[in-house]
Amino acid sequence: MTAYHRLTARFTRIATVNEAAAMLGWDAATMMPPGGGAARGDQLAVLAGLAHALLTAPETAADLAAASSSGEAWQDANLALMRHAHTRATAMPADLVEAQARANSACEKVWREARAAADFARVVPQLTEVIRLVREQAAALAPALGLSPYDALMDGFQRGIGSADVAPVFAAYETFLADALPRAEAIQAARPAPQRPAGPFAEATQEALCRHLAEAAGLEPAHARLDRSAHPFCGGTPTDVRITTRYDPEDFGRALLGVMHETGHALYERGLPAAYARLPVGEAAGMAAHESQSLLIEMQACRSDAYLSWLAPLLLERFGGDPAPYHPANLGQLWRRVGRGCIRVDADEMTYPAHIILRFRLEQALVAGELAVADLPGAWNDGLRALLGITPPDDAQGCLQDIHWYDGAVGYFPSYTLGAMAAAQLMAAARRVLPDLDAALGRGDLRPLVAWLRREVHGRGSLLGFNDLLRAATGKPLDPADFTAHLTARYLT
Amino acid sequence: MTAYHRLTARFTRIATVNEAAAMLGWDAATMMPPGGGAARGDQLAVLAGLAHALLTAPETAADLAAASSSGEAWQDANLALMRHAHTRATAMPADLVEAQARANSACEKVWREARAAADFARVVPQLTEVIRLVREQAAALAPALGLSPYDALMDGFQRGIGSADVAPVFAAYETFLADALPRAEAIQAARPAPQRPAGPFAEATQEALCRHLAEAAGLEPAHARLDRSAHPFCGGTPTDVRITTRYDPEDFGRALLGVMHETGHALYERGLPAAYARLPVGEAAGMAAHESQSLLIEMQACRSDAYLSWLAPLLLERFGGDPAPYHPANLGQLWRRVGRGCIRVDADEMTYPAHIILRFRLEQALVAGELAVADLPGAWNDGLRALLGITPPDDAQGCLQDIHWYDGAVGYFPSYTLGAMAAAQLMAAARRVLPDLDAALGRGDLRPLVAWLRREVHGRGSLLGFNDLLRAATGKPLDPADFTAHLTARYLT
Repeated sequence: MTAYHRLTARFTRIATVNEAAAMLGWDAATMMPPGGGAARGDQLAVLAGLAHALLTAPETAADLAAASSSGEAWQDANLALMRHAHTRATAMPADLVEAQARANSACEKVWREARAAADFARVVPQLTEVIRLVREQAAALAPALGLSPYDALMDGFQRGIGSADVAPVFAAYETFLADALPRAEAIQAARPAPQRPAGPFAEATQEALCRHLAEAAGLEPAHARLDRSAHPFCGGTPTDVRITTRYDPEDFGRALLGVMHETGHALYERGLPAAYARLPVGEAAGMAAHESQSLLIEMQACRSDAYLSWLAPLLLERFGGDPAPYHPANLGQLWRRVGRGCIRVDADEMTYPAHIILRFRLEQALVAGELAVADLPGAWNDGLRALLGITPPDDAQGCLQDIHWYDGAVGYFPSYTLGAMAAAQLMAAARRVLPDLDAALGRGDLRPLVAWLRREVHGRGSLLGFNDLLRAATGKPLDPADFTAHLTARYLT
Repeated sequence: MTAYHRLTARFTRIATVNEAAAMLGWDAATMMPPGGGAARGDQLAVLAGLAHALLTAPETAADLAAASSSGEAWQDANLALMRHAHTRATAMPADLVEAQARANSACEKVWREARAAADFARVVPQLTEVIRLVREQAAALAPALGLSPYDALMDGFQRGIGSADVAPVFAAYETFLADALPRAEAIQAARPAPQRPAGPFAEATQEALCRHLAEAAGLEPAHARLDRSAHPFCGGTPTDVRITTRYDPEDFGRALLGVMHETGHALYERGLPAAYARLPVGEAAGMAAHESQSLLIEMQACRSDAYLSWLAPLLLERFGGDPAPYHPANLGQLWRRVGRGCIRVDADEMTYPAHIILRFRLEQALVAGELAVADLPGAWNDGLRALLGITPPDDAQGCLQDIHWYDGAVGYFPSYTLGAMAAAQLMAAARRVLPDLDAALGRGDLRPLVAWLRREVHGRGSLLGFNDLLRAATGKPLDPADFTAHLTARYLT
């Protein structure tokens, strides 16, 4: 058995432990009674510690030192990714890994109560501990990776992109938005307001429809579940994907489009190269790459005129009532509407990057120690005012709205907007390659698009870095111009 | 840090890994899409392997050798149980542990299909492999424990009881049954047949009622869930208990009494001593002890005249319809009815031991290599004919009916009848100590009974062995006379 083969066996074992943890994380968000929270935190901490111990064992270092390039691209990429994971892990003390898992779990639990009560003070002690540990994590990782502390955190979500790449893209977008948003609002205001379908819409009907659409997009029920959670997500494993949503009885669009978003994530997991399952090169290429897939399905495909022309009569059939609001043009205006709102997950695609820019700047300040957790609500509200000219009525609609920081995920937020930009770029490329794409979408048929994504993105796993993946699929590295062109075509013409 | 304290830290870690596995096992039976089965088998195998590695690490052996008696009963019992677990684990090669986890998971999956199709041949290859590995397991354990191969398996479910204790108790029961069953049938036949409440009964109504009764018995929703599975069970962890059932639209009694049975298990888990959580001495005292708790709640308490007098009007209120079948006396006759049936889990308490005696003898023969898996259906049908004079119409109602063997659990079945006997003995003792017990049951109030069980059984964890636990709670070791007295009073007078 060669050093490389011993490494693949070891990384397979690590990935299998992480699969167990992923399932327990899904359970905690969907099924677990509240009294199970403390024990669940311990379980996740112990599994994280065991995976960390496997990764940092002396045998792993010895095999990594002994293994050499094979000249085969997948194997070499796999080995490089193993080295990268090992570098990240050995930079982190085992007790810090366990302390983070425990603190994140405890904080997430209190966050659920704090958000329900719009009471930020309630979670300050837990979030302070989470951020303190995140700063320890960043300080430990930065020298090992040769990155700044914040970039060392970003690297954990999307390799090869740092704040120096992101900051100018975001600054340019801020400039674009300052011009585009008032213009889009004016165009919108000059039209009659779209009509909302009249609710309430039974949860069971919404759920059945969500299942139908996810399956029609290619998500197989034998390998996936749809459940409910406070914050929608896609979890589980490639052969057992677990997506979640929440249902608004007055607005079926939230769950429906949310489920299509998570379906985009789920299709990515389902399309990863099975031959490299449980190996680093067989994983998704990063969080920005993942978000490009969810936004491509939700924003680019499902909100297109073509798809809506197929969806609208189906919705009318399921929900009944006055047919006027179900006209495709009306649904298009309803679901492609700009506006200045406080909630990130409800934001339209034009203002969404403003929410990300806010979080990107605040989390950099938290990591740098320039912003105290107790001062977060004020900084949040100031920042949102500067970007969108609005102020949250309470912290539940402000700095308490997202799970990420409360679960220890700092450096993740930029991925959303990088993903939105990549989604536009991939869709533009797919249109060039698939001339009948709109005709297929007009039949509710996502198969040609998903087949192209499987070939160009999903099936490549982590063989290529983010920009190389885009170059292979679209002929160029990340180019925000496709995103602003998409927004201009959709909202400014 | 003393050797004993290092051991407690290590065993806590092992128990936490096992908690994760318990949750994944629950998920596999209740939530998992079928396509997740292969990956789940790997996950359970890897977790079992990691727990085994922690238990068999050289440091564990060194600390066990160094640790000495403290003179404190709980600590000494804990240490003795750690030694016992270590002896069992070191006798088992790590690759056998993983192979069993994998084979059991694969077999259980095929069993679900085979049972649905009443096609034993479909699962023969998988069950043959499971039994082959069980025999390897028994051969590895027997010399280390100084027990026969079959007793070494039994020891894994209930310490301190072997086939030499069980065989004469079972032989005596066979004699009792040969006389008692025809007499009970004759008494029953001389009465008018009880009326069945007319269905169908909506699953949602049944489920809500099951939840209500479980909660009324003291199972807190903050620490428990009720879900559906093909085979009812109680899983999860002491702070997050997961019970399951299945609903028959024509007979609400199956789910209702089944849920009270699982509630008995769940209350035991909830009542274990929290100060010794995740330590061997803080665990339940064994499977026979566990079954005594489920049967005490289901058979002794919930099927009593007193409890039924409270339950009957509640059932009528929930299900409506003709009130006559809801008379407590009618429900009593319906739910305390002897009969010769093929299905163990549907058996009345008098014939149930016959099903156990059958399995006890067959699994001894399988382990001894005297019975081939392919010959199981014939041996099963011959055995049932000899004990109850009936023959299963197909293998789904014969040797395919129970999950146990297909999941690698051999040596478990005797625990059911030992538990039934212990339940009668504990109930007799509780009646002596709690003179108002029937009055409380007549108000649907299980709290005095559960409080007594908590003190006398649950709260003792594994401090005492099975017979010592019964002696502490009832003044004598296991005495089958309380069980036959209970049956005589209920069915022969």
